[in-house]
Amino acid sequence: MPNRLHQQIQFILEIDRLKQILRQTLLTDSSRRENSAEHSWHLAMMAFVLAEYAPSGTDLLQAIKMLLIHDIVEIDAGDVSCYDVQGNLDKAEREQQAANRIFGLLPPDQAAELRALWDEFELRTTPTAQFAAALDRIQPILHNRQTQGHSWQIHNVKQLQVMQRVAPVEVGAPELWGYVQQIVEECIAAGYLASV
Amino acid sequence: MPNRLHQQIQFILEIDRLKQILRQTLLTDSSRRENSAEHSWHLAMMAFVLAEYAPSGTDLLQAIKMLLIHDIVEIDAGDVSCYDVQGNLDKAEREQQAANRIFGLLPPDQAAELRALWDEFELRTTPTAQFAAALDRIQPILHNRQTQGHSWQIHNVKQLQVMQRVAPVEVGAPELWGYVQQIVEECIAAGYLASV
Repeated sequence: MPNRLHQQIQFILEIDRLKQILRQTLLTDSSRRENSAEHSWHLAMMAFVLAEYAPSGTDLLQAIKMLLIHDIVEIDAGDVSCYDVQGNLDKAEREQQAANRIFGLLPPDQAAELRALWDEFELRTTPTAQFAAALDRIQPILHNRQTQGHSWQIHNVKQLQVMQRVAPVEVGAPELWGYVQQIVEECIAAGYLASV
Repeated sequence: MPNRLHQQIQFILEIDRLKQILRQTLLTDSSRRENSAEHSWHLAMMAFVLAEYAPSGTDLLQAIKMLLIHDIVEIDAGDVSCYDVQGNLDKAEREQQAANRIFGLLPPDQAAELRALWDEFELRTTPTAQFAAALDRIQPILHNRQTQGHSWQIHNVKQLQVMQRVAPVEVGAPELWGYVQQIVEECIAAGYLASV
């Protein structure tokens, strides 16, 4: 077995662990917490179905690859709620180390490719990364609307924090920005999200 | 909210149910059964990382889209073990109906696109579909090797059936065929798979 294939298979086996990383959001039927592997699948499907709303210059294949890998670092670094101030203090450092280790399981050319893609997602300066980020902000509000604001309520999150969190949609999927604002309004009206 | 976007969002919410469809295979650490959404993510990642082994003429974006959607019909039709003769009798009929209903939630142009992609996967006559099918056959043997042949043993599956099941790898990822045969041999030697 060539060493290159051996490294690729070791990476494929290692990322199975992403299926064990639980997120704050519930499935839409509230039956259990979502894990980061199935979440990544859902976002890749959203990129496929909502591609027409991507900003000019977006590369759909790159956006899908980016969404498939964007949470892999959580295998080592864990899923930290975006509203958890304490947990976010050393998150960047832990995720950098995780990216080094996990992408580093691959042959060097692929390790560099995945790392560059993950860095691009984190920086959000290209249309592709901005579109990917927009989808990653839209999916949790869809799930929160379906689950009566579950992950907002356990973290005592208010409208202002949610609006800051979804703000990247305005740039990354401009035609969906009005819809996202409408969902937030609906959730406030339904009592799922506190306005103050 | 435009009707087109409404249909797209209804589809995105509906496919959340794929996270509840349990497969025969376990996660590699044997802790629980794998679901079809996280399995689809894993296969899309395999297409990304193993793209260099795809047959000439493969379109990687199409292969990844195909793997993302290939099991969505299970939301209605369920996951049937490939070794379950009785369960496979009316599987094709149930999956056709499921494809009609679920892809039919989308706007007509997208419903047709996803349906054509799923049909292409099922037919396995293009290099893209053959590559996608090869990955769908390789992943379960990797998981079976890690879990001491769990899903083979619960269905009392023997070497001949596994070899028939993985045979599409020879066409869909020719350079991986020797490796797949080697895994099967290893599993027999380890007692995870009965040779007769």
